[in-house]
Amino acid sequence: MWVGDDAAVIRVARDKMLFATDAIVENVDFDLAYASGADIGYRALAVNASDMAAMGGFPFHAVVTVGLRPDMELATFASVLDGLADAATEMRIAVVGGDISRASELWVSVAMTGATDGDPVLRTGARVGDAICVTGSLGGSAGGLFALQKEIRGRDHAIDEMIRRHLRPRPRIKEGLRLASLGATSMIDVSDGFALDLWRLLTASQVGCIVEPATIPRDPGLEELEMMVADSPAPLDLALAGGEDFELLFTIHRDRYQEAKMILGEIGCPVTAVGEVTPGEKRLGDTPLQGEDQGWDHLRGR
Amino acid sequence: MWVGDDAAVIRVARDKMLFATDAIVENVDFDLAYASGADIGYRALAVNASDMAAMGGFPFHAVVTVGLRPDMELATFASVLDGLADAATEMRIAVVGGDISRASELWVSVAMTGATDGDPVLRTGARVGDAICVTGSLGGSAGGLFALQKEIRGRDHAIDEMIRRHLRPRPRIKEGLRLASLGATSMIDVSDGFALDLWRLLTASQVGCIVEPATIPRDPGLEELEMMVADSPAPLDLALAGGEDFELLFTIHRDRYQEAKMILGEIGCPVTAVGEVTPGEKRLGDTPLQGEDQGWDHLRGR
Repeated sequence: MWVGDDAAVIRVARDKMLFATDAIVENVDFDLAYASGADIGYRALAVNASDMAAMGGFPFHAVVTVGLRPDMELATFASVLDGLADAATEMRIAVVGGDISRASELWVSVAMTGATDGDPVLRTGARVGDAICVTGSLGGSAGGLFALQKEIRGRDHAIDEMIRRHLRPRPRIKEGLRLASLGATSMIDVSDGFALDLWRLLTASQVGCIVEPATIPRDPGLEELEMMVADSPAPLDLALAGGEDFELLFTIHRDRYQEAKMILGEIGCPVTAVGEVTPGEKRLGDTPLQGEDQGWDHLRGR
Repeated sequence: MWVGDDAAVIRVARDKMLFATDAIVENVDFDLAYASGADIGYRALAVNASDMAAMGGFPFHAVVTVGLRPDMELATFASVLDGLADAATEMRIAVVGGDISRASELWVSVAMTGATDGDPVLRTGARVGDAICVTGSLGGSAGGLFALQKEIRGRDHAIDEMIRRHLRPRPRIKEGLRLASLGATSMIDVSDGFALDLWRLLTASQVGCIVEPATIPRDPGLEELEMMVADSPAPLDLALAGGEDFELLFTIHRDRYQEAKMILGEIGCPVTAVGEVTPGEKRLGDTPLQGEDQGWDHLRGR
């Protein structure tokens, strides 16, 4: 532990808490050719805070373990710590402990506690007839990564904004809290791609859907990218499968959709209805939603 | 997360909790030539539970991230999960979530919450005149690793017991709880070696010590090892610097030492007084205790 004792003593004024963990690994989740140490530290906290947001909660305390390559410059490690501190300040997270290890690649594993004001929003609560909604826009993170790989930084504002989204994802904490109090029936954050995360949400709730691909909100930078780079992927593909947008995908009674749209609009967050929960198949336009096999997708080399 | 939602919802019936994290990494903390996947899973929980014991607390909930080599057999991963489950059952820990990533070597990072019955025991409370005590015996884990490397398993009971201690360390949870209620003034678990961990405890408390090396309890297998293997390290060296014994090193008012010895003896745990807290230097026999430089010892290649 970086702190003085074997464990941190944290104050808890609740009878329920949230507890989650997520790790990010060099050359799997980030590449030091594109991301700074500070971006990586920031991201490690952000992805965990997004898990809290997806429960309708807010982050509270975090502990961090870092795997460090012996050949890495200490400045890179210091930069990771700076990024962790930046994210902790922005997201009001108390980093109360940590540990470092030698490793063959840089990795950052974070565990986080969180809390909700009322009941947490689970993946299991979607009901037939609910509206399926998503905050913000999708595909921006994948577009940002593509732009970094094509080295077209600093030429277009919307593209630079996608790069920022990729390097410094902003979890929708305030939005998740409001959606919980507005009665969202189920929620998940878009970390592995809209289509897969929607499949997970619906599978947990044992319901189907009809989602119209044309309604899915796409990051405005994706069109710029398509115009600028000949071989850029189709915006819809990035929006459906890109992942790491950390937007909130949720279901809510259809009568409450307009209220949710208005209230989140007041804090600058667009909300789009993209479909409806059905008792039948999970359909994305004319095709069935593709799921995953036992959660082994991480293993099979994402 | 392995569980169904983005975060686990845990029940908390306290206003204070403990929170800690520790990772173990292949070829740094373990070697698959000697340890099974199950040993590694077991160890990952045990080292974190020992941090709780060192605070006078007990473990509560854990989340786990695992870095997996793509070339590793799935059976090894299944074995890690078995070891985690074994430790969780034995130590009464609820593993409530986790995540897996691709990585260049196997690693397991655990974060754990815990609780105490009263106030946690910190490193800062040692007072001049207190007895310095240690549970059990030291050097057994390092002796067990040496025996594994020399391939002398199955020939001597005391040596096999050291190997078991190395592969399946047993955190002193019950003992830590009792020491807290008996008024231990400061406590740490022996993870990086008696000498270094004692230095940390005394430094945090801003006191000195006089410790007599001859009184330090050594694992009975170390003598067997010395007789059996010509180039085996001296028992005292392993006891002082071996580490990973996960015994509890604590200070307590000298008038309470006998009571602590008796009460822990009743649950089968020896307690040995090895010295006294002083206002002066930190002395181990005739030599000053060696400390560490800014906690960078992990980085410098342990």
